[in-house]
Amino acid sequence: MRLEILPVPGIGHVTEGDDLAALIGTAAPWLRDGDVLVVTSKIISKAEGRLVDVPADGPERDAARDEVLAAESVRVVASRGNTRIVQTRHGFVMASAGIDASNVDKTRLVLLPTDPDASARTLRAGLHQRYGVNVAVIVSDTMGRPWRNGLTDVALGVAGMDAIRDHRGEVDPYGNELVLTQMAVVDELAAAGELIKGKCDQMPVAVIRGYLGAPPAGDGEGATVLVRDASMDLFSLGTAEAKAAGFTAAATLPDRPGDAAPDPALVDRAIATVADVVAPGTLFTPVRDDDVRTGLVATIPGWPTRASALVLCSPPTPVGPVQLVRFGADVQRLRTALAAHGVPSQLLPPPAHTAAAAALAL
Amino acid sequence: MRLEILPVPGIGHVTEGDDLAALIGTAAPWLRDGDVLVVTSKIISKAEGRLVDVPADGPERDAARDEVLAAESVRVVASRGNTRIVQTRHGFVMASAGIDASNVDKTRLVLLPTDPDASARTLRAGLHQRYGVNVAVIVSDTMGRPWRNGLTDVALGVAGMDAIRDHRGEVDPYGNELVLTQMAVVDELAAAGELIKGKCDQMPVAVIRGYLGAPPAGDGEGATVLVRDASMDLFSLGTAEAKAAGFTAAATLPDRPGDAAPDPALVDRAIATVADVVAPGTLFTPVRDDDVRTGLVATIPGWPTRASALVLCSPPTPVGPVQLVRFGADVQRLRTALAAHGVPSQLLPPPAHTAAAAALAL
Repeated sequence: MRLEILPVPGIGHVTEGDDLAALIGTAAPWLRDGDVLVVTSKIISKAEGRLVDVPADGPERDAARDEVLAAESVRVVASRGNTRIVQTRHGFVMASAGIDASNVDKTRLVLLPTDPDASARTLRAGLHQRYGVNVAVIVSDTMGRPWRNGLTDVALGVAGMDAIRDHRGEVDPYGNELVLTQMAVVDELAAAGELIKGKCDQMPVAVIRGYLGAPPAGDGEGATVLVRDASMDLFSLGTAEAKAAGFTAAATLPDRPGDAAPDPALVDRAIATVADVVAPGTLFTPVRDDDVRTGLVATIPGWPTRASALVLCSPPTPVGPVQLVRFGADVQRLRTALAAHGVPSQLLPPPAHTAAAAALAL
Repeated sequence: MRLEILPVPGIGHVTEGDDLAALIGTAAPWLRDGDVLVVTSKIISKAEGRLVDVPADGPERDAARDEVLAAESVRVVASRGNTRIVQTRHGFVMASAGIDASNVDKTRLVLLPTDPDASARTLRAGLHQRYGVNVAVIVSDTMGRPWRNGLTDVALGVAGMDAIRDHRGEVDPYGNELVLTQMAVVDELAAAGELIKGKCDQMPVAVIRGYLGAPPAGDGEGATVLVRDASMDLFSLGTAEAKAAGFTAAATLPDRPGDAAPDPALVDRAIATVADVVAPGTLFTPVRDDDVRTGLVATIPGWPTRASALVLCSPPTPVGPVQLVRFGADVQRLRTALAAHGVPSQLLPPPAHTAAAAALAL
């Protein structure tokens, strides 16, 4: 058994309206059933007319590019300086929504194909119809990834094979069941195709021969199965963006008790977190009672406290209006630190209808 | 031009102390100068004795595994449920520090090689010494990535070639200079190798033939160039972890003015952020003065205000101790919302030595 990675030279410049099946089939009359074609998304975009006109340079170009980027994105995942990592309308998370200014006139930008799976199906069908070959087609593009330098090619679309090879449930020779192993083989095939495309000038198509054991039985479900839903992803937002989201959530912290008594260790940790930033003399005293619901009582010395409190808070003495405002800010710091540990809290006033509350009311 | 991906069958089970160069050279006497060997890290780990004994099952196994994971990690990047994405001592960010329980006895775990680049150099040197072949060696392992389902093989170590093929500075046929294109070709070669390794049972080594134009001139700088420094990475922390870090930073918000007047639009946005959660009647009035430094004055009605204030804050009336504490908490909410927009702030008391301050002091 061996695999071959073959270049398809002679495709030349592709322009809007070109019949890619004819261009590829003419350039590679040697295609066989079961070959996997890896096709650079850019020539598909060009053939499909996915280009926009922009100024060649200057701030007008930047503005036009920003506008195109916004139109191609459903959300910004992370940004720094000029870098924008966005989720595209397909669901892919990539820099600049895959918009590319290379290998095209200076006054045009190339967008990703609208539906790369459909593009793959169309090309696969065209090759079958014109040349009678039954191949799989992968639409590839270049992506970076967190934590690693350098780019690799991955699959945006596929027709004629499954995107994932699933080893789950298989048992290794030691009797261990494989529980996690789902290989994104179309990404690996796209990467393999890039090895030869990248070595040659203007080589938008590569063929992997020998990978498929048999000619495709159908189109398959496409590459959209590779898109992980943001809610399932541990990195759905950039670190800076998520930190800012944490700040915003802290600013709008809900003011309500939790459903159960919190872990006392977490409460202690929250108190320790703010110990050095609150006014000297401020006291935060956790109430240990398994029955209490999460809450906070902001007290001043001598005020009655509530049995349902989680943390009794007392300002330093003597206490005047200035100190009370600062005390309120410090209690909010504590509530924020509790929230950082997942502990909800409520700012409770001293109980109404008590003599102390009445006496101190201004 | 064509590339071939060849399997190396017949290596069998590898155990501690095995001479991998001898095993591979015997199994693949057909190796040639310029071949690229992709070697699954697991057989290198086994040969190097990177195994630990653990209980076969039960909570003892989980505890032992957690201990091993902590020892192999320098930090936790993200976690959810039983999933731990960590940075390993090498700098790689991956699930469970690459610790693997498959293809090994149930009572052992396989750790990553201590220094995969050194492992690659040793194997490359061993093959050259014993068999006279000048090859490149890639040590590969399987990784997931954010935002995409499915795993692919990537390079942990390499000797005999550069990890990255750098296209920066090249000019495309349209006259555009390529500014970003650095391809992680060793990751693509590792992925290509997996295509054949994954199709076969127990196939830990693949050979890519035809990729290197000439036999290696030296070991090269290894795969550590693929490790992106956390400070450069937009995803240095998981989203949930970064949000919690945002909460903690909000709880310990520094109380000091900024160096320059903030963007008024950001101040307005911060005020709008907290508008619905502060006590009804609380007033936040931005001071528009390009000369002011960022700051906050917490005032009560009738108090003098400071010209250096960014936002004048007034509690609802009538104001008593309870209202002042709530007011302090609400001002802290505003300061937190300002911080979410990158605007530093300071909680300023009413100016001392004024009649108003003296009259209201308790």
